[in-house]
Amino acid sequence: MKDSPRLLYGCIEAGGTKFVCGIADSSGKWLEQKRFPTTDPVSTLGQVTRFLAGGQARHGELAAIGIASFGPIELDRASEHWGSLLATPKPGWSGISLVRPLTQAFAVPIALDTDVNAAALAEAQMRANSSIDSLVYITVGTGIGGGAVFRGQAIHGRSHPEMGHLIPPRHHLDADYAGCCPYHGSCVEGLASGPAIVARWGKPLSDLPDEHPAHEIIAWYLGHLASTILAVLSPECIVFGGGVMATPGLMDRVRAQAQRVAGDYLISSGGNRTKIEEPRLGSVAGLEGALLLAQRAAAAARSSS
Amino acid sequence: MKDSPRLLYGCIEAGGTKFVCGIADSSGKWLEQKRFPTTDPVSTLGQVTRFLAGGQARHGELAAIGIASFGPIELDRASEHWGSLLATPKPGWSGISLVRPLTQAFAVPIALDTDVNAAALAEAQMRANSSIDSLVYITVGTGIGGGAVFRGQAIHGRSHPEMGHLIPPRHHLDADYAGCCPYHGSCVEGLASGPAIVARWGKPLSDLPDEHPAHEIIAWYLGHLASTILAVLSPECIVFGGGVMATPGLMDRVRAQAQRVAGDYLISSGGNRTKIEEPRLGSVAGLEGALLLAQRAAAAARSSS
Repeated sequence: MKDSPRLLYGCIEAGGTKFVCGIADSSGKWLEQKRFPTTDPVSTLGQVTRFLAGGQARHGELAAIGIASFGPIELDRASEHWGSLLATPKPGWSGISLVRPLTQAFAVPIALDTDVNAAALAEAQMRANSSIDSLVYITVGTGIGGGAVFRGQAIHGRSHPEMGHLIPPRHHLDADYAGCCPYHGSCVEGLASGPAIVARWGKPLSDLPDEHPAHEIIAWYLGHLASTILAVLSPECIVFGGGVMATPGLMDRVRAQAQRVAGDYLISSGGNRTKIEEPRLGSVAGLEGALLLAQRAAAAARSSS
Repeated sequence: MKDSPRLLYGCIEAGGTKFVCGIADSSGKWLEQKRFPTTDPVSTLGQVTRFLAGGQARHGELAAIGIASFGPIELDRASEHWGSLLATPKPGWSGISLVRPLTQAFAVPIALDTDVNAAALAEAQMRANSSIDSLVYITVGTGIGGGAVFRGQAIHGRSHPEMGHLIPPRHHLDADYAGCCPYHGSCVEGLASGPAIVARWGKPLSDLPDEHPAHEIIAWYLGHLASTILAVLSPECIVFGGGVMATPGLMDRVRAQAQRVAGDYLISSGGNRTKIEEPRLGSVAGLEGALLLAQRAAAAARSSS
C-alpha cells in the first residue's frame, strides 16, 4: 500500500522513567522528537498532548497516534478500561488512562500496545529481509519485560505477556537474596533487573569489575529466561535490549548461558538456530514500534472507511 | 464456507506408543477409526497407508489428509525434511518421514502439525463460542509437551514449541533426583512425566496413596509450567491432558500451585482470569486436531485452484 499524500503520525513511548514523543511522516522520517521525565500523570500526559498539538500546528494534521507503553496495561479494546494502566508499582499511575486525554484532544485513530510488543514489531520489521517472522524482544532495565511477534502480529491473550515474571531456578551462589519483585519476589525481574543488581551489590552491573560473580549470576538468569522462551515459543530470534544489557560482555555471557541451558535440542533444529541478538534499533525500538502501530491504525481506518 | 458435496478426510494421530487413524466427513462425523501400537516405522506407516487406502475404497476419495504427530518433527514446508521426525529418543524413528509414504499413495493435500498443536486447535475450536482465541494445550504422559493457538493459528517459530523442556526450580523435597530427560535432565518432562514418576516412586501417580508427597511434588512442577506459560504467553485458557492428568485430584492441585506461583498479577487482570481446564475432547483432541488440519488443507487447495 502506498501512502499518498504524505501522512503524519504522532508517536509516544510511555516509560516509567521517561516519555519519548515524536512526529514522523509516511516515509518513517522523524520530523521532531521530545523526551521528558515521567512525573505525575496530569503533568506528564499534559506535556504529551501539548507536544502532539504543537506538532500538528507545525507540520499538519496527524493521521493516527501510536502508543508503546509500560505495563501492565489494559489492551482489550472491548473493555471500558482500554488504554488504562492496571495495578502498577509506579506511584500514582494505577488506573490512569493514557488514551483518554488523547481522544479528547485528537479525532484520529489511536493504537496501543506494550513497549516491548512495539519494540518486537519494530525489530521484526528490521529483519523482514532475512525472513524472520517470529521474534521476542526482551528489555532488561528497571524492570524486565518481553514482547512476542509472530507473522507480523504481536501476541496478546488474556492480557499481554509479562515474561520477566517467570520464576527461574536459583543460581547456587545467589540462594539467599529474596528478590525485589513486589509480586513474586524471586522472578527474573526480581533477581536480574537493575534494582535487583544494586540491591545485592551496591552498584550497576556495568560498574562492577569484570571478574565479579554478579556478571555470571545475572547472565545465568537471563540465559534461563532465553531458554524458557525457546521452549515455550521457539522464536527465530530473541533480542535483548535495555540499560542493563549495555554492560560490556553481558550479551556474550547470556548467549553462552542460553546455549548451556537449552542444549541443541531447543536452540537449533534442522540446521536452523535461534539467534540471540542486540537490538538493531538500539534504544529507539519502542518509539519506532509506536510509529508502526500508528501507521497500522491509519491504514485500518482507511480500509474500513 | 459450505462443504458441498460431502468431503472425506484421512486423519492420523501419530504417537510414540500408538497411532490412531480415522476417516471423517465434512460434518465432522467419524466413519471409522483404528488404533494400533507404534512398532518399527515400515510396519507402522504401512498400516497407516493400508487403513487410509481401505477407507477410500469403502467410503470414497479423500479430500485431504491431516497428521498430528509426536515430535520433534520438521514443520518447515520449505525444507526437504518437511514431515520427518528429527532426533527423537524413540528407537528407529529419527529421520523417518511420516509424509513420504502418504504422498506416494495419495494425490491429496497433506497437512501436518505436532500432536499438541493439533490438540490445541481442536480444544480452541471447542471453546469458540466462549470467545476464547488464545489457548495452550499441555499433555502430561510418557513425555510432556505443549502447543499454542492464537487467533485460530498454531504457533510455529524456528521450530515448534517444546514446552515440557523448560527448567523449573526444584521442589525442596525433590532435590536429589537427577531427572530422566536425555537432553536436559531436570526439565519439567524429566521431573514430572510418567517415566520420571515411576523412576522415583516405583509406580504411576494414580497408584500412589492420596497422602503420598509425590502428588504435591508433581503438581508443583506442573503449576510452575502453567505459571511460566502465563508469563510468556498470557493465554486465556490452559488445557492439561494426557495419561498422568487422569490421576484423581491432580487437576485441582495443579490449579492451586499455578495460582500460588503466578499470583493474581499473572493469572488475572481487568476481571479476566486464565482458565486451567481439562480437555473437553478427552483423549481424542489430537485426532480431532488432525481433522481440522485436513479440513484446512482441503479448503486452502480449493481456494488456490
